[in-house]
Amino acid sequence: MNKANKSVKTADKAAGAKPGEAKPALHAIKGGKPVLVKSPPKPAAKPAAVKPIPLKAAPPAADDAPVIALNLPMAKLTPAMASYFKKCQDKLGFIPNVLVAYAFDMTKLETFVAMYNDLMLGESGLSKLEREMIAVAVSSQNRCYYCLTAHGAAVRQYSRDPLLGEHMVMNYRVARLNKRQRAMLDFAVKLTASPWSVEEADRERLRRGGFSDRDIWDISVVAGFFNMSNRVASATDMRPNTVYHGQAR
Amino acid sequence: MNKANKSVKTADKAAGAKPGEAKPALHAIKGGKPVLVKSPPKPAAKPAAVKPIPLKAAPPAADDAPVIALNLPMAKLTPAMASYFKKCQDKLGFIPNVLVAYAFDMTKLETFVAMYNDLMLGESGLSKLEREMIAVAVSSQNRCYYCLTAHGAAVRQYSRDPLLGEHMVMNYRVARLNKRQRAMLDFAVKLTASPWSVEEADRERLRRGGFSDRDIWDISVVAGFFNMSNRVASATDMRPNTVYHGQAR
Amino acid sequence: MNKANKSVKTADKAAGAKPGEAKPALHAIKGGKPVLVKSPPKPAAKPAAVKPIPLKAAPPAADDAPVIALNLPMAKLTPAMASYFKKCQDKLGFIPNVLVAYAFDMTKLETFVAMYNDLMLGESGLSKLEREMIAVAVSSQNRCYYCLTAHGAAVRQYSRDPLLGEHMVMNYRVARLNKRQRAMLDFAVKLTASPWSVEEADRERLRRGGFSDRDIWDISVVAGFFNMSNRVASATDMRPNTVYHGQAR
Amino acid sequence: MNKANKSVKTADKAAGAKPGEAKPALHAIKGGKPVLVKSPPKPAAKPAAVKPIPLKAAPPAADDAPVIALNLPMAKLTPAMASYFKKCQDKLGFIPNVLVAYAFDMTKLETFVAMYNDLMLGESGLSKLEREMIAVAVSSQNRCYYCLTAHGAAVRQYSRDPLLGEHMVMNYRVARLNKRQRAMLDFAVKLTASPWSVEEADRERLRRGGFSDRDIWDISVVAGFFNMSNRVASATDMRPNTVYHGQAR
Amino acid sequence: MNKANKSVKTADKAAGAKPGEAKPALHAIKGGKPVLVKSPPKPAAKPAAVKPIPLKAAPPAADDAPVIALNLPMAKLTPAMASYFKKCQDKLGFIPNVLVAYAFDMTKLETFVAMYNDLMLGESGLSKLEREMIAVAVSSQNRCYYCLTAHGAAVRQYSRDPLLGEHMVMNYRVARLNKRQRAMLDFAVKLTASPWSVEEADRERLRRGGFSDRDIWDISVVAGFFNMSNRVASATDMRPNTVYHGQAR
Amino acid sequence: MNKANKSVKTADKAAGAKPGEAKPALHAIKGGKPVLVKSPPKPAAKPAAVKPIPLKAAPPAADDAPVIALNLPMAKLTPAMASYFKKCQDKLGFIPNVLVAYAFDMTKLETFVAMYNDLMLGESGLSKLEREMIAVAVSSQNRCYYCLTAHGAAVRQYSRDPLLGEHMVMNYRVARLNKRQRAMLDFAVKLTASPWSVEEADRERLRRGGFSDRDIWDISVVAGFFNMSNRVASATDMRPNTVYHGQAR
Repeated sequence: MNKANKSVKTADKAAGAKPGEAKPALHAIKGGKPVLVKSPPKPAAKPAAVKPIPLKAAPPAADDAPVIALNLPMAKLTPAMASYFKKCQDKLGFIPNVLVAYAFDMTKLETFVAMYNDLMLGESGLSKLEREMIAVAVSSQNRCYYCLTAHGAAVRQYSRDPLLGEHMVMNYRVARLNKRQRAMLDFAVKLTASPWSVEEADRERLRRGGFSDRDIWDISVVAGFFNMSNRVASATDMRPNTVYHGQAR
Repeated sequence: MNKANKSVKTADKAAGAKPGEAKPALHAIKGGKPVLVKSPPKPAAKPAAVKPIPLKAAPPAADDAPVIALNLPMAKLTPAMASYFKKCQDKLGFIPNVLVAYAFDMTKLETFVAMYNDLMLGESGLSKLEREMIAVAVSSQNRCYYCLTAHGAAVRQYSRDPLLGEHMVMNYRVARLNKRQRAMLDFAVKLTASPWSVEEADRERLRRGGFSDRDIWDISVVAGFFNMSNRVASATDMRPNTVYHGQAR
Repeated sequence: MNKANKSVKTADKAAGAKPGEAKPALHAIKGGKPVLVKSPPKPAAKPAAVKPIPLKAAPPAADDAPVIALNLPMAKLTPAMASYFKKCQDKLGFIPNVLVAYAFDMTKLETFVAMYNDLMLGESGLSKLEREMIAVAVSSQNRCYYCLTAHGAAVRQYSRDPLLGEHMVMNYRVARLNKRQRAMLDFAVKLTASPWSVEEADRERLRRGGFSDRDIWDISVVAGFFNMSNRVASATDMRPNTVYHGQAR
Repeated sequence: MNKANKSVKTADKAAGAKPGEAKPALHAIKGGKPVLVKSPPKPAAKPAAVKPIPLKAAPPAADDAPVIALNLPMAKLTPAMASYFKKCQDKLGFIPNVLVAYAFDMTKLETFVAMYNDLMLGESGLSKLEREMIAVAVSSQNRCYYCLTAHGAAVRQYSRDPLLGEHMVMNYRVARLNKRQRAMLDFAVKLTASPWSVEEADRERLRRGGFSDRDIWDISVVAGFFNMSNRVASATDMRPNTVYHGQAR
Repeated sequence: MNKANKSVKTADKAAGAKPGEAKPALHAIKGGKPVLVKSPPKPAAKPAAVKPIPLKAAPPAADDAPVIALNLPMAKLTPAMASYFKKCQDKLGFIPNVLVAYAFDMTKLETFVAMYNDLMLGESGLSKLEREMIAVAVSSQNRCYYCLTAHGAAVRQYSRDPLLGEHMVMNYRVARLNKRQRAMLDFAVKLTASPWSVEEADRERLRRGGFSDRDIWDISVVAGFFNMSNRVASATDMRPNTVYHGQAR
Repeated sequence: MNKANKSVKTADKAAGAKPGEAKPALHAIKGGKPVLVKSPPKPAAKPAAVKPIPLKAAPPAADDAPVIALNLPMAKLTPAMASYFKKCQDKLGFIPNVLVAYAFDMTKLETFVAMYNDLMLGESGLSKLEREMIAVAVSSQNRCYYCLTAHGAAVRQYSRDPLLGEHMVMNYRVARLNKRQRAMLDFAVKLTASPWSVEEADRERLRRGGFSDRDIWDISVVAGFFNMSNRVASATDMRPNTVYHGQAR
C-alpha cells in the first residue's frame, strides 16, 4: 500500500459534519434495530492505545469453518480499522466475516469498506432497504451463500418484513412490489444475468418508474458491487457469521 | 448529445487543492510504453499552481457521444482528484472516460480510483499483464464494450503482443498460454459465468498451477472487480476514449 | 437416521387399517418436534359425522394472499380427506396450503396426497431428511418459493441444523456433505437442469456412493416429483403458510 | 443384462392377442379411436381368479434392452393392478413399459396410475389431444426419449394428423395452431424451461386465449407431470415399447 | 398464399412416376438401398432438349403450406439443374423442398447442390449413414423441423433401423452407439452448442476414437453445414416434403 | 508442428509482391476501396501455364502456427484455383488462410469459394458492408477468432469506420445503427443463438425495417454461412493471417 492511497478514504466532510467525525459503516443490526456503525473517529494522538480486536474471543465463523478457504492471516489493523472493528463489535456484537476476510491487507480492507459504506449507507435516492433488496436479488441470481445470508438479514431488518427477505432470497418475482421497486429489481437482475443486453429501453423503463439518472447510477453500481462481492465470496468459499441466520425472523 | 450531457466533462476546476491529497493511478500508457501514473508527489507549496485540465483541448469521448447515457454533471474535483486528472492528462494525453463518468461525485470517484489502483497496480503475485488479461477475458464473457476497448489496449501494450490482446477480446481459449495462465483465465471466466459452481477443486487447480492463496485472492478480486465494472459500463452505456482503439496495434 | 426421524413414518399399515382406507400424511412438524400425521382411521359408519374443517376459521394463507392465483373454490372434502385435514390441523396447527390448493377436486387431492406420502414418508433407503434435501435442492434450481419455504423448514427440522436448511435453499454446494449425499444432490440437480444429459455414468457415480438401484429410483422420483410440484406452484403462484418461515430456526 | 431384469419385459405378443387387433396404449387408443382404459372395477370377491400377465412369454422391451437401467424386479401385482394390466393387454396388445418399470412396488404403481389416469383421461376443459400435445411439447423441451415416443404416438392417433405429432416432437412452434393452443403450449414450455419466470401476465394470456382458471390448473399440472415423468425416464434410461414407433404414421 | 409461391411446389406425384417405384431423396435412397443422385453430366450439346419439371402439376408442399414463408418465385432452371431435378423426380419421385426453395436463383441452387453432394455423398472416411447421423443430431440440437424430417428419414433408410432415426431426432444419447460414433456425435453437438469451447482435447478424443485428421475435417464441416442449413430452414419456415414422414418406418 | 502441416502456409510475401502494395483479403479490399476478386475466367486452353503459388516461400501463418490443427497437406491446385490464388496474391498480397485450409481437396475448395463469393460479393439488396456486419455479429455470438479477425477487418475497411468494426466484434448492440441495420443484426444473432425460436413475427420485423423477402433470404443465408464457417474454424483451430489485425485501424 502506497502512501497516496492511505489518504483515499470514506471521507465525507459534508458541511456540518463535525471535524474528526467519520463515516457510516456496514449495515449493522443489533437487537432488532438498524444501527449505524459510523466510521470511527480519527485515531487519537496515540493510536497505540487502540487495541486490536481480541479476535480469539470473537465468535466463530459460520459453520465453525474458517471464514474463507484461503490461508491469509490477518494483518495488524491500522488504527482506523481497529477502531472500526471495535465499533462493529460494540454495536453489532460481532465483526462481519467479510471484514475479517479482507483484513489480511489493510489497503484492500479500507478500500472495500470505503466503497461499501458509500454505496450502501451514503446519500442516494434509493432507500437503504432498496439497496439491500438489490443486493439480495443479485446474490440470488448468483446463488451466493454469504451475501444471501448477510443481506437477507438486512432486508428482513430494514423492512421489518421477514417474508420480504425470503422473497428476495428465493425469487424476487414473488414479492408484492410496487412498480418502481419491481422495475428496479428487474433491471438489477437483467444486468446481472446478461449485462450485454442492457440498453436505453431498460433505462427508460426505470425513468418511467420514477427513477432519476442518479438513481439509475446507484441501482447499477449497487448491482455491480454485489456482482463483485458474490464472486469474491464464491471464489473463496466465504462463510457468513452464523448470527445472521436468526436475525429478524 | 443534449445540453445536459454536455456538462459531463472531465472538468475539474479544482484550484486550491489542499496539501496531503491522494493521487493513485489508472494503468496508463503513453507513446507505446506502459507508464505508471503513480500517486503524484505531495503537492508543492503552491497548489494554486495546479491548473485545471484544459478540457476543451481534450479528445472527444469515443464515438463523439457523451461518456455515459445518464445526465450526471461533473462535480468540482477535490484537489486530490484534480491533481490526479492532471497527471492522467500529462502522461496519457487524456482522461479515461470511466473517471469522467464517476466524477459527478467525489466520494464515488475516489473510492473507485483507490480500489482500481490497488487491484491493478498494487503489489501482487500476478503481473500487471496477467491482471489485464483477467480483465479482458472477464469483459469478453460479459461482452463489455468499454472494458474490452480500454483493457484490450492495456494487454497489447503490456505484452507488446497485439495478437494476445485480440485473443483476450475474442476468445481467450485460442491464445497459446502456459498452464499457469490458462488455469488463471479458466478460473476467472468460470467465476464470471457461474460463480455458484466454483469450489475447492477449482482452487486446487490454481494451486497446482503454482498460485499461492494470496494469488487466488487477487485473481478472484480482479475478476470480481471487472464483473462490477462491466455492469456499470453496460448499465450506463459508457463509451471508451477513441484513442484506445489504435494503441499498440 | 436420528430418533426424531424414526417417528416420522408412513402409517398405512396401522393396526386395524381396513381396506379402502386412506392415506398417510404430509411431513408434519409441530412445536419443533416431528409429528406423525397418520392416516386417518377408517371413516366410521357415519361419515357424515366427520365435519369438514371449518376453513373460514382457518389461518390465512401466507402473505395474506389467497393460496393460489386461480379461482378454484374448495370442494366438499371426502370423509377420508376431511379426516386427514383434521389430523393436520390437530397435529400441525394448520393445513399446508398445497392441500388447500388441490382441494377443489377430491380425486386430484387424493392422488397427490397418496403419491406425496409414499415418496416422502414411505419406506426407502433414503432417510426422510435426505428426501427433503433433494426436495429443496431441486426447488432451489427451479427457484420455487412455495417448496423452498415448506421443505426448507422440513430440512431444518429433520436435521436439527438450521444452516443445512439455508444451504439447501441458497446453494447446496456450500453444505459440508459426505460423498454419498453430495453425489445424491449432484444427480438430482443435474436431472433437474438438464435431464437429457443423465446417463449410465451418472448412475454409476451413485452406485459408487453406496446407493442401490432402488435408492437411485427413489432419488430420481423425488427429484421428479418436485420438478412437478415446483411448476404447479409457480404456475399458480402458490403461497406457503407463513408459519413455515419461523420453524426450526 | 442380469437375470432380475430379464423378468421385466414388455408383453406385446402375449399369447391370445388376436392378429390384426388394434393396440392402444396407456393413453388408450384402439382401431384409430381413443379408448379409455379405465381403472379396473374394484376387484371382485375372488381376486385370485385374476391371473398375472404371463410376463415370461413377453417379447423384449424396445431396443431389445431392459425396460430401465435399474435392476428392480417386478413385484406380484395386486389384484387391481393385475386387472389393469390385463385390460391393457387386451385393449392395447401390450403393457406400456412405464407400467412395467413402476411395477416393482405396488404402491408406487398404483399412485402413478391413479394420477396419470386422472390427469390425462379424467374430466377437463382440455381435450385429451390437447393434454397429449402438452405432454409432447414438454418432453421435447426435456428431450425425453420415452415420453416423446409414447405420447408422440398418442398425438398422432388422437389428432389423426401424423404431422402434428412430428411437430410436437421436433419444435411445437412449427405447428399451425390456433391462438388458444399456441398460448397453451407457450405456457407449458415456459413453465418447463424457466418456471421461476411464470407470472400473472402469463396466466392472463391464457385467460385471453379462452382458458378458465380450472383449465390453467390442468395445463400446469399436465406440464408438471411430464416434467416429473421425463426425469424419471431419463434418470432410469426408460425404453418405450417398440410398437409405438409405427403407430398412426 | 400468394400466386408466386403457388408455383413453388413439390412434385411427388408427377405424371410418369411408375407405381411402386422406390422414392429416394436428395440423399438418394431407392428400394432400401442408398442410391447416388450424382450431379448430372455436363449438359449435352442440346440442353434445350431437357424439359423443365412440370412444376405446376406438382402436389403441394408438406402441410399444404408453401415451401417457405418468403415469396421467391422459382427461376428458370439451368439445363444442369433441370437435369438434376429430373433425376430427383425419376429416382425419388419428388423434388426435395430445399431444392425448390433455393431455385429462385440458379447460382445459389448450384452452389448449394455442389456443396451438399460433395459433403454428404462424396468420398469420406465417414459412411453416408454417419454423415446423416451428424446431420440429425445437429438438427436436433437446433430443433430444425425441415432437417430432422428429411435427414431423420435418411438415417432410418441407411441404417435399416427405424429406431436409430428416432434416437437421433429425440436425443442421440439414448442410442446404443459404439465409442467411435458416440465420440463423433459428442463432437458435432458440442461444436453446435458451444463452438468457442472446442479445443485440442476434443480433437484428441476423436483421434483416440479412430478418426483421422481428414475424418475430423469431415465431421466438422458436416456439422457446420447443418448449422447453416438449420438456420436457413428456420429463418424461412421451410417445410419438408410430406413423403419423408412415412419413409422407412 | 509436423512436416505435412508445414506446407500449409500463408503466402503474404510471395516473391513478386511489390513492396507497399495494398493487401485486400478474400472479401477483397485494396487501397481502401473494395475490390472484387471475381471467380477466375474459365481456364484457358493451357492451364499448365498457370503456375502454382510458390507456397514454400510463404511466410508462416498467423501466430506462427500452422493454419489449422489438422494435418491435411495441400493438394495440387486446379488451374481455376491456381488462377484464383494468384489473383488473391496479386490483389491482396496474401492468400487468406481459410483458402489454404480448404486446399487439401479441390472440390471442397471450389464449392466453398463459389458459395462464399456468391453470398458475400454477388448481387443482393444488402450492401457488402451489411453482409460483413452480419458475418461479424454472428461470429461474435460464436466467439470465432478466425472470422472475427478476417471479417472485422472487412467491416473496418468497407465502412471506413474502425469503431464500427470493434462494435461488431465486441457487442453489436453498442453500435449506433439505423433501425434497418439493427433489425438485420437482431435477426441474424437471434437466428444464431436460438434458431428454433425464429418465427413469422421476426420476418415481419425485417419487412417493417424495409427488407424484401429476397433480402430476408440473404440475411438468413449469410448468417447461416457464418454459423457454418465459425464451426469449421473452431473445430480446426483455424488461424487468421496476421495481416488482418492491422488493416484499416
